[in-house]
Amino acid sequence: MTRAELFSQIKAKQSYLCVGLDTDLTKIPKHLLSKDDPIFEFNKAIIDATKEYAVAYKPNLAFYEALGAKGWESLQRTIQYIPKEIFTIADAKRGDIGNTSALYAKAFFEQMDFDSITVAPYMGQDSITPFLRDGKWVIVLAHTSNAGSADFQLIESKSGRQLYEEVILKTQEWTTADNAMYVVGATRADKIGSIRSLAPDHFFLVPGVGAQGGDLAEVSKHGLNKYCGLLVNSSRAIIYKSSGEDFAEMAGKEALNVRNEMKILLDTYL
Amino acid sequence: MTRAELFSQIKAKQSYLCVGLDTDLTKIPKHLLSKDDPIFEFNKAIIDATKEYAVAYKPNLAFYEALGAKGWESLQRTIQYIPKEIFTIADAKRGDIGNTSALYAKAFFEQMDFDSITVAPYMGQDSITPFLRDGKWVIVLAHTSNAGSADFQLIESKSGRQLYEEVILKTQEWTTADNAMYVVGATRADKIGSIRSLAPDHFFLVPGVGAQGGDLAEVSKHGLNKYCGLLVNSSRAIIYKSSGEDFAEMAGKEALNVRNEMKILLDTYL
Repeated sequence: MTRAELFSQIKAKQSYLCVGLDTDLTKIPKHLLSKDDPIFEFNKAIIDATKEYAVAYKPNLAFYEALGAKGWESLQRTIQYIPKEIFTIADAKRGDIGNTSALYAKAFFEQMDFDSITVAPYMGQDSITPFLRDGKWVIVLAHTSNAGSADFQLIESKSGRQLYEEVILKTQEWTTADNAMYVVGATRADKIGSIRSLAPDHFFLVPGVGAQGGDLAEVSKHGLNKYCGLLVNSSRAIIYKSSGEDFAEMAGKEALNVRNEMKILLDTYL
Repeated sequence: MTRAELFSQIKAKQSYLCVGLDTDLTKIPKHLLSKDDPIFEFNKAIIDATKEYAVAYKPNLAFYEALGAKGWESLQRTIQYIPKEIFTIADAKRGDIGNTSALYAKAFFEQMDFDSITVAPYMGQDSITPFLRDGKWVIVLAHTSNAGSADFQLIESKSGRQLYEEVILKTQEWTTADNAMYVVGATRADKIGSIRSLAPDHFFLVPGVGAQGGDLAEVSKHGLNKYCGLLVNSSRAIIYKSSGEDFAEMAGKEALNVRNEMKILLDTYL
């Protein structure tokens, strides 16, 4: 998917919501557990209920790998089910040497037809460039929203920049705003403006709104650019809004609520 | 597996060889391709031929994920087949927020009974500590052997330390030499002595001997400690030594050659 196609979907839906499919057998409604593939049944219902309001879906691979080969099959079914015009993110946080990263690209871009993959930058250029393909995206971890993000990402270098800033600047030597995005945590809403100045045109994938405690209005005020430039992820707050038989309906309502807030923010800032 | 158990295997075999099971359908002998599970058949033959000389096996997950659910099944069969006294490493280079890392731990330590997993440190403490369990190991990327390792790992901080040094020191606040190891590339043989001084008691997993061009004698001279402290990985140089029907026999001979060199080095330095 190109940046123009993504932006046109955002304009059509008046939304920059990404729904995180962190689907966990211990959290999905009990009545699904008797199905052949409960994970897929849950995802299918969530997708049906939210696809008018979501411009992206992001399964986190850990939830599927924890179930072994069966989880991998549920994931493949899920990806095939997502409408082609919606952006898909393999939240895999991979990162390896060049020939190995090329195999991960094969896994996520060929075995499964994801539009993008999240990648850890620690191993440098040859862990990132093998993912660069026409119409595909690499989403580089920059400043994450978890407690441990301060341990290394905030280390200040001799040049006066913190590690996440080095990552954002250096990776732009190898990538462009048409094939790369950055993960920027919403719990750092106060910083999103300064991060935006390092990558004015790029999309940021923003986790942490909802369960991790970010603030959509603040993030949007400082993060939106003229092509939107934000994909704001919500996982648990949407998909586990209800644990009853009405889980999909309630997820749809919650996604609509977020979309309505986003519509106002787009009208205000774009 | 405890550190004492690992060391006792090393003494018994007079070897610190780790065989990398980077098994690729395009590189294995053609006569295996007609089998039901060619990847497993290849691994089984390699394990049978090398298990007297290898103290560890390290499948790189990318090779299996590139084949989808079927690859995952081949990996599970392979892990079940490896003799229990041999150390197993899931070369997965995972790293995510705490609750997600806990699921990766479930995938690799419960779904599959790996002894250890490689982890990228970028996301900090909560991406590492969920892997700490009795008898299990987390192997933290420190100074890798690929070209891109210089991009971020060598950034010098205000304290005068490079990022990989910060990683080695900081992670020791959360882990010990009994549950953590570090990935240190053999192409940095000149540096292994100084890295050893930062983590005197830890095991280092050293890739890059063989296809990536490290030097076993140099690595061992500077890296061995009183409990050995090294697992030196060789993948392609062993498993693809021959592409004919004699592939397993030739892999066994090559593993024996490496073991014989290691035996001399252990006699010299331990």
